Amino acid sequence: MHIEEEMRLIAKQAKVASQSIGLLSTEKKNEVLNQAADALIAETSFLMEENKKDLDKATQNGLTAALIDRLTLDEKRIEAMAIGLREIAQLEDPVGKLISKKVLENKLELTKVAVPLGVIFMIYESRPNVTADASALCLKSGNATILRGGKEALHSNIAIATVLKKSFVNSGLHEHTLQLITVTDYEAVNELLKCEHDINLVIPRGGRSLIEAVTSQSRIPVVKHDKGLCHTYVDAKADLKMAEAIVLNAKTQRPGVCNAMETLLIHQDLKDSFVPQIVKSLQAKGVEVRGDQTIVQAGSDVVEAEDHDWEAEYLDLILSIKVVADIDEAIAHIREFGSGHSEAIVTDDAAAAEKFIQEVDASGVFHNTSTRFNDGGQFGMGAEIGISTDKIHARGPMGIDELTSYKFIVRGTGQIRS
Amino acid sequence: MHIEEEMRLIAKQAKVASQSIGLLSTEKKNEVLNQAADALIAETSFLMEENKKDLDKATQNGLTAALIDRLTLDEKRIEAMAIGLREIAQLEDPVGKLISKKVLENKLELTKVAVPLGVIFMIYESRPNVTADASALCLKSGNATILRGGKEALHSNIAIATVLKKSFVNSGLHEHTLQLITVTDYEAVNELLKCEHDINLVIPRGGRSLIEAVTSQSRIPVVKHDKGLCHTYVDAKADLKMAEAIVLNAKTQRPGVCNAMETLLIHQDLKDSFVPQIVKSLQAKGVEVRGDQTIVQAGSDVVEAEDHDWEAEYLDLILSIKVVADIDEAIAHIREFGSGHSEAIVTDDAAAAEKFIQEVDASGVFHNTSTRFNDGGQFGMGAEIGISTDKIHARGPMGIDELTSYKFIVRGTGQIRS
Repeated sequence: MHIEEEMRLIAKQAKVASQSIGLLSTEKKNEVLNQAADALIAETSFLMEENKKDLDKATQNGLTAALIDRLTLDEKRIEAMAIGLREIAQLEDPVGKLISKKVLENKLELTKVAVPLGVIFMIYESRPNVTADASALCLKSGNATILRGGKEALHSNIAIATVLKKSFVNSGLHEHTLQLITVTDYEAVNELLKCEHDINLVIPRGGRSLIEAVTSQSRIPVVKHDKGLCHTYVDAKADLKMAEAIVLNAKTQRPGVCNAMETLLIHQDLKDSFVPQIVKSLQAKGVEVRGDQTIVQAGSDVVEAEDHDWEAEYLDLILSIKVVADIDEAIAHIREFGSGHSEAIVTDDAAAAEKFIQEVDASGVFHNTSTRFNDGGQFGMGAEIGISTDKIHARGPMGIDELTSYKFIVRGTGQIRS
Repeated sequence: MHIEEEMRLIAKQAKVASQSIGLLSTEKKNEVLNQAADALIAETSFLMEENKKDLDKATQNGLTAALIDRLTLDEKRIEAMAIGLREIAQLEDPVGKLISKKVLENKLELTKVAVPLGVIFMIYESRPNVTADASALCLKSGNATILRGGKEALHSNIAIATVLKKSFVNSGLHEHTLQLITVTDYEAVNELLKCEHDINLVIPRGGRSLIEAVTSQSRIPVVKHDKGLCHTYVDAKADLKMAEAIVLNAKTQRPGVCNAMETLLIHQDLKDSFVPQIVKSLQAKGVEVRGDQTIVQAGSDVVEAEDHDWEAEYLDLILSIKVVADIDEAIAHIREFGSGHSEAIVTDDAAAAEKFIQEVDASGVFHNTSTRFNDGGQFGMGAEIGISTDKIHARGPMGIDELTSYKFIVRGTGQIRS
């Protein structure tokens, strides 16, 4: 079969499967997820064998130790995947949730209830555990799933999807509940992006070039999980001890993730107090500091920031720092360079905090706390499919509620419109 | 200036304007809308003069009387536009609305509040009043607006937009709050569809070819206002008197709109009772009936339906009728041909009604009432931008709440993530 036909078939099969998945009871879905968790544990050695093929290839291709670590599946990580599935089984079922109910003047009863989206196509470059997480989140929200993971994790992803699919089918689910694209040719993705009649949502989660490729080709609605170019602004009236703790947390607690800080903005009144102190503390934590002239003068070993630094999502122990004249300059800088992900202000000035909260347009705006909290788990939403950088449909952490749509149900007794 | 540059500039200007519009107070927005309503009334003769240019051209081009009527602006219709603006001023401001609030275990205060989308680009083929409605709905929801109306209403749309813009600027709003595209070359639309960094949402409202052109080109999220291929299924256990009233209402009360019925499905048990009766009643109301073999035999002057009839959105006094073996065949037919807009069942069998409500995937599902009620005004949502046939972001009637996104605000006292 040609790629074109094969992909169209996959989309059509998913659409058919979605009709029965959307009607599954909560109990059934939870039972299926718990059984799939058991299956992952039972197949630990198979999963590790298949993962080894990816690891061997990664070693041959000279991938960094950090990337190889991300790719590795061991017993502990497989158990973590299984626990993830069981946690998703514990979440409240979003399907059928009553959103609103009212009786209209003409006595029509109007209810708005959550329904599954239908078919979700997720494209990701992340660790193999996303294969299990995404499958489970889509199933719990009543959707059929098409997954396309990163090439470097192909064997691991196939192994995880195979174990899950077998378990789903053993539990009586439709055989096309979950489909993993194994064709690595990017043409396969482009074909699927044309199947707007069968696929309801595309979720690309990854780097700039992936997002760009998907948005330029897709006829299907896309919710982007794009980069996080997050700022922290330390205002003139900040508690400097608090500011230091927040800055260090936002940059160093886990630098490789999208809600980590990439640029620090500091009010000019703090150039002789906070600036030299924070540069030293960051460097002590192994952070490479790049900055404007004031920052270069304030510390040793500070690299002068170039234009591209203000646009950089380092995802690493590197930070660009800029001194600003006031809060307006901070907000203007964020408007120009921010990616609408997570933005923080540290200040004891309530008016400044409110101004920042109002005027900064991002999925999460943080006052006197770390951007690292922009996370579905931290927000009490349960597991998340990722952090949406879009403003349409879902913004910020995207959990199972955000994998649903709604319908209006109108119950009457013969009312007609006049 | 080339079209490409001109459109990019329009998008950028809208983005800049959106930053101040999003911060306007409710009182200010309402005052602006009421003043704009006064301005429309004051400019009645100018609007009618400009409208006459479109009407003359329409006559020259041989447009039908119905289309010319749609295009016509008279004093009453201009007053209706003004009333529409005043009604939008009365609606509760969606911006800043508290969606949820909780205190997390670590004492972080998490609130989720509605925020404007930013810049909305609406493309429509409808009557000139949409120019006023869309401008007002977008302004009330804190967004900057770019409009592109139908060619045949160009002079009328320019006139309405000019009056509104002048009034907005007199009220102190940013000069690019509202921009109307006057270049009729479709290339202009395609250029705007590439401005994904400045435009947040595209709303195409119109026929198949418009929707197709937009979804194939846009890099910006699209919420489609596509066709309504709506069905009514009369079940074996229907109250036949009620069924007749509902069917006649859904087909004939206003046949040219998207929530009118296009296909009637009837349970086979009713082939000797309801079928001949409803065919006669429909024909008495001037409806051309097309049907399967049973329907052809049941009445006189029934045209045999061809395959394309089941896919037709007539928007006219034409109806296709099919006899089905049972509710499952009715649901299967709707799954195959329905556009996910509005679907109705007439039955006194509660289990059948629930089955239909569960299994039919549409923005509105109606039990014992007419599909014509799928409307923002009827649902108590106020004025609407249209009826979304998408499942992402907004489904069904799209009012001012659906023209917003949200942000998470996290207020802390120095919390960091461990």
